[in-house]
Amino acid sequence: MGIEVAPIGHVRGGRAAVEDDGWDAETCRIEFDGGLLEPEATLGLDGFSHVEVVFVFDRVDPTSVCTGARHPRGRRDWPRVGILAQRAKDRPNRIGVTICRLVGAGPGWIDVRGLDAVDGTPVLDVKPHLTGFAPRGEVREPGWAVELMAGYWD
Amino acid sequence: MGIEVAPIGHVRGGRAAVEDDGWDAETCRIEFDGGLLEPEATLGLDGFSHVEVVFVFDRVDPTSVCTGARHPRGRRDWPRVGILAQRAKDRPNRIGVTICRLVGAGPGWIDVRGLDAVDGTPVLDVKPHLTGFAPRGEVREPGWAVELMAGYWD
Repeated sequence: MGIEVAPIGHVRGGRAAVEDDGWDAETCRIEFDGGLLEPEATLGLDGFSHVEVVFVFDRVDPTSVCTGARHPRGRRDWPRVGILAQRAKDRPNRIGVTICRLVGAGPGWIDVRGLDAVDGTPVLDVKPHLTGFAPRGEVREPGWAVELMAGYWD
Repeated sequence: MGIEVAPIGHVRGGRAAVEDDGWDAETCRIEFDGGLLEPEATLGLDGFSHVEVVFVFDRVDPTSVCTGARHPRGRRDWPRVGILAQRAKDRPNRIGVTICRLVGAGPGWIDVRGLDAVDGTPVLDVKPHLTGFAPRGEVREPGWAVELMAGYWD
């Protein structure tokens, strides 16, 4: 049973090609579809420093999606883990969720930094980042994930 | 131009009816669709304390979705803000993203606490929570959002 979603907007600018790391240096615009959203949909976003962007990794070939387990980034020195235990883009439904710094906002657009999506990427949602929804209690993650992220923002 | 997504699983247990607050007390299971995911898709998730669940607020009538601005929770003492500046469920594409505590994981299922989704909700994705993707730099949010969250976990 499928569910149809519609892009509320698209990424404009930023990188033209997919690369793994260094997205923190990238700023891009999200232009919203005036047929789906009123200009007021972004009203008050400027009160937030960060947003969560929900988007589709549409450059990923659906036939290359991983549905089981594999080594993250192909690193055989890291354990094989399931696709739901990693954030790789070739995942079922190809949905990305990224917390970005909000650089600017106006009627029909926002500018964000740190979005790991290339020019033209369809956007499904933008949500404000609320600190009250941060993880509660002790936070734990495996060593391979810490190693991966150590290189991410370089 | 629509994009078709397919639920990778469904929420089992937890609340039967939609309510606004207090979800931190709720534990539910997500059962994955064996036709879409191999049992190994959850391998290694038990190394993480928290996951992000991407799901569809499917009880929301698509015709009641807000596409402009309104007062969060109907509170007229809070400012009118755009639907992209709030996390209300009646939003374009009706997609929810929630960080939950992972209580348990096995082949084809996970148990989570704090998921604001009722029994039967379709799930589009599960991602591990990586601390390296936390917001970078100063975090800022408006007063109404701080007030709203102050009551959320009670």
